[in-house]
Formats: sequence, C-alpha cells, structure tokens
Amino acid sequence: MKKIINSPEKLVNQMLDGLVKANPNKIERIPDTNVIARIDAPVDGKVGIISGGGSGHEPAHAGYVGRGMLDCAVAGEVFTSPTPDQVFEAIKKADAGKGVFMIIKNYQGDVMNFEMAKEMAEMEDIDVDYIIVNDDIVVDKKEYRRGVAGTIFVHKTLGAMAENGASLKEIKKAAQKIIEDIKTIGMATKPCTNPSDGKESFELSDDELEMGIGIHGEEGIKKEEMKSANEIVKEMVDRLLEEIKDNDSEYAVMVNGMGATPEMELYVINNCLSDYLAEKNIKVARTYIGNFMTSMDMAGFSITLYKVDDERLKLLDQEVDIVRK
Amino acid sequence: MKKIINSPEKLVNQMLDGLVKANPNKIERIPDTNVIARIDAPVDGKVGIISGGGSGHEPAHAGYVGRGMLDCAVAGEVFTSPTPDQVFEAIKKADAGKGVFMIIKNYQGDVMNFEMAKEMAEMEDIDVDYIIVNDDIVVDKKEYRRGVAGTIFVHKTLGAMAENGASLKEIKKAAQKIIEDIKTIGMATKPCTNPSDGKESFELSDDELEMGIGIHGEEGIKKEEMKSANEIVKEMVDRLLEEIKDNDSEYAVMVNGMGATPEMELYVINNCLSDYLAEKNIKVARTYIGNFMTSMDMAGFSITLYKVDDERLKLLDQEVDIVRK
Repeated sequence: MKKIINSPEKLVNQMLDGLVKANPNKIERIPDTNVIARIDAPVDGKVGIISGGGSGHEPAHAGYVGRGMLDCAVAGEVFTSPTPDQVFEAIKKADAGKGVFMIIKNYQGDVMNFEMAKEMAEMEDIDVDYIIVNDDIVVDKKEYRRGVAGTIFVHKTLGAMAENGASLKEIKKAAQKIIEDIKTIGMATKPCTNPSDGKESFELSDDELEMGIGIHGEEGIKKEEMKSANEIVKEMVDRLLEEIKDNDSEYAVMVNGMGATPEMELYVINNCLSDYLAEKNIKVARTYIGNFMTSMDMAGFSITLYKVDDERLKLLDQEVDIVRK
Repeated sequence: MKKIINSPEKLVNQMLDGLVKANPNKIERIPDTNVIARIDAPVDGKVGIISGGGSGHEPAHAGYVGRGMLDCAVAGEVFTSPTPDQVFEAIKKADAGKGVFMIIKNYQGDVMNFEMAKEMAEMEDIDVDYIIVNDDIVVDKKEYRRGVAGTIFVHKTLGAMAENGASLKEIKKAAQKIIEDIKTIGMATKPCTNPSDGKESFELSDDELEMGIGIHGEEGIKKEEMKSANEIVKEMVDRLLEEIKDNDSEYAVMVNGMGATPEMELYVINNCLSDYLAEKNIKVARTYIGNFMTSMDMAGFSITLYKVDDERLKLLDQEVDIVRK
C-alpha cells in the first residue's frame, strides 16, 4: 500500500485539519471533535443543514460545508459512522433556533447514530428532523439501499432551500420527494485499499470490472469482463431506466469519479451517456462531472439521475460558497 | 491496462465531445477541430486568452474555458502538442479585434506550434503575443524548465485581467512578471499508463516514490524510499524555498493531485504543508486543493507557490464561470 499519509491512526485528524488550514475564512473545526462547521454557523433565521458519515469519500462531506449547502459535516473514521456525540455537536453548532435537518446516508451505523443524536438534541429542545438517502439502485430491497453519490444532490437542493429561508417542515417535505427521484449506479475497475490494513476491498483481475459497487469498498453485484466505455454506460443506464419508468421528465445527471479515475475518462463516459439518454428520450437539464463522492483510491464511476423541475433546477443553480474548488 | 474508454484512437475526440455535451450553454467545439471555445467567443472589447497542449491533463485545459479564464483551449492527442493549424483556429475564434494572448507550457513542440500559429495569425493581421510558463523547478537549466500545475494560476490571473479590459501589452507585461513568481515541484507514487500502448511511463517498485516528475509521465530526478507525507512535503518545500529566497511575500498555494490521488491525501498533505510553511515564515494567502493539472492515472501530487500581492489576489478571487465544477 502506497498512501501519502503519516499513519492510518492520524489520517482523519490530519485530513480535517488540512482542509481547515486551506480555508480558514470559510470553515472551522469544532475543538475536540471531527465536526467541520461553516465559520458563521449558526446562521440567523436559517434551518441548519448537516450531514456526515465515515471518511474516505472526500470531498464528501466536509468539502460541501459553506453558504448554500451544509452548515456542518461530521466525519467518522475511515468507512466508520461518526458517534452520536459528534453528530450532537454538529446539531448544536448548526442550530440557530429554527431547527436542524440531517442528511443521512442509508447505513445502519449512520442511521442509528444520527437518530441517537437527534434524541440527545431534543432533550435540549432543539428541533431535529432528517432524511435517509438511498439512491443506490443495485440493492433489490429498498430498505437496504445505500446512500451514495446522489446524496450530493440532496445537500445542494436542501442547502439552497435552507439558505432561502425554508422551514424545517418544508425542508422535510421536499426531502421526502427528492430522495424518491434520485437514482445511482456505480462500477469499479479497481477496488479501494483500506489504510488500516493495506488490503484491497475485493479481488478483481486485470480483465474484469465490478458492476454495482458501493462506496465503502463493498463488492458489486457481479464481475464482468472488462469492456468498452460505451458498453459499460449502456448497461448502467438500462438498469437506471428500469427504476425510473418516466420519460417525460427532465433530469440532472452526475458522472462521479470514485477517486482514482482520470477526468478524461469521465468525459468519455459522458459522451456516451449523453447520447444514450437522448436515444432513450431522457431529457438532460444539467450535467455535473467530477469527483463528488469518492471511495478513496477506487477507480470507477457512478451515474446519478435526479428528476428535476424548474424549482429544483433553480435550487441546483443557486450560487454556493463552499470549500470544494 | 484498464481504462474506461472506447479506443485510444477515439479518446481525445470523445472526451472533448463529452465535456461539451455536459456544458452546452457554456462551451462549444469548433467544428472539425480539437478547439473548445467559450460559447460567446469572441467577446467584444476583450483580449482573447487561449491555452492548450497535449491531452491527459484534464481538467486542463478545456475545463478552464469560460468567463474570467480562457476563451479557447486547444487539445492535442495524449501528451502530444496540438498542431499549428489547430492553434490558429483558436486564435481566430478568440480574437475580437484587441488581439489574442497565448499561455504556452514550456515544451518544445508546444512552443514551436504555438509560435507558428502566431505567424499564421499575423499574416491575417491578428495581434498575438504569448508567455511560456516554466514553473517546474526540478530541471536545473531554466530554459528547459517545464510548464506544469502553476500554469493554472497564469490562466486565472491573466484571464481575470482580460475580462477586466486589460490590453494585450498590459497582459504581456504582467505575464512576464507572473511566471517568475510561480514555482512547482511534483512527485508520484505510481506512473501513468499510456492508452496507446498500455505501458506505464516509468518503473517504480512498491516501496519507492519518484521525486520531481513531470506531467507527461517523465521520470523524476530520483527514486526514494517511500516515506511519510510529512517527510515528502518537507523535502519538496525545502527545494521550493531554495528557489524563492524571499520570505517577506505572501503566496497562493496549490496542492494539485496528479489524477489518481484520493482527495483525503491531498488534505493530509496540506496539513503538513501549511504548518511547515508557517515554520519557515512563509505567509499563505490562499490555498487551492484539487485535481487541476493531472497526468491521467498517475498517483502523486505537486505543490505550487505563487507570490501574490493585493492586485494578484483580487484577480485570483475574481468570479469565473468555467465548466470545471
């Protein structure tokens, strides 16, 4: 394992400090926690928006802290849920009296710990509500569907709503609809390597790809022979369209690199993706290409389709001032 | 070699199309060329700013096309200079009558071809001037120093000046000073793989790093035993400071991923970098972390120091509307 770090034990700590040191006027780290907060949190008159989860998905989630997106992001150790007390610190920091909304990815540990933090906050009379994002379509049972790259669309949409003064109730209502309209599928050509033991998260030979991976090194739903970008994209889109069954809407599209994927490949992927969606009569309103929700040094990508209307597009387009550049 | 592409021959073509399809309202591809242009180019009353070079450095350079940065970017094949006629197309597209300024990275092919394009343009009475960026400090002889990640600071500074109405002469004068004040050094833990033959650009064993690499798969100045992020950063900063010999100025800092480096590692790098620069009394005014100038699937990073004053900071901070997200 060759990682440019100092030690696995210090990784999350030093990474959070490194991000703050790059953005001293925008974010701060709440002392003795792994919580990154907007420098001006809590923001008067605004519902606080927080998210978080295990580390290893950078720039998620701390990279999305700032005006128009998250008030706080809570980082657990690598691929490990943050503890309830850490989430509670984020809630307290984000609350300006209008309550706090939590964006949780659907993993047992995250859900449990964020819910416990909610209880802790309610004992101190802070209103807390939340949504559980479950955009990963490769898991059959809906209750087990994981939150993956589509979570960033949730950050963006709800973050903009909160910035515009929406209430906790309005945000919750919108969130419930939004998560129904976000679908993601991912693949990998290379697993990620866990810094603590130097082991690759699954085995993949030189002529194979892994279809349907998660963002924590979870194996996919099947191994396939390595094939062309066009073939890979079409297979993924076909699966997405089975879920969507609605060709009359417009979509925001995300092509997300898993961490070690050259950006040139993401553009090639979008070339096919754009054509194939047009062929399927799917209208694309916006396309975002980049590393938004990664899995450390995994190579591969995910495609997310987010059904949008004028209101959601306006929220997606709304200016932000976050640390991700 | 596992690359998510269709074929090496179609790679650049499909990649450019894929980028345009993601940003149909911001950029266009000039038909039958590898030139990506601002959708509103040429922009009245503005000097045109163009750049380019071989592909494989994405998001450079097409990702920086848009208001406040580049009017056009010319893409060659992977790690291959674009031809003079392609650069000439970019010049014609960018010219609104106030002339065109070319930002060239210091490689023999690029310099030759951009200079030839300048001659072609001058025969059509278009004023053209240029700067050759040579920020890579690891090459001893200054005339052979390569243009690497610091080129993005040149795009940003001159792009903002042009947007604000600076003349070709003023831009040239500023550019000459700017390139003296930008210094970069890079390292790799993994070479890149050339899509045309599937070969890695140099050999590196599992316990080695390559110090002083270029962005075209060039071997570095020496192989070293793999070591901690802190040790790597200190070695690189020490070399940068030998060049700079000026502790009274402020600097903009870039931590640039080479393409396959997880963002978490870039943050860890900045944690040490920020502390070590402070220890050396180097004042940091801005820090940019991300993949700005890559080398396909190379793992590693570069550090750039750019000496700034209030005027340069204002230009760096000026809003842009480019396709890179």
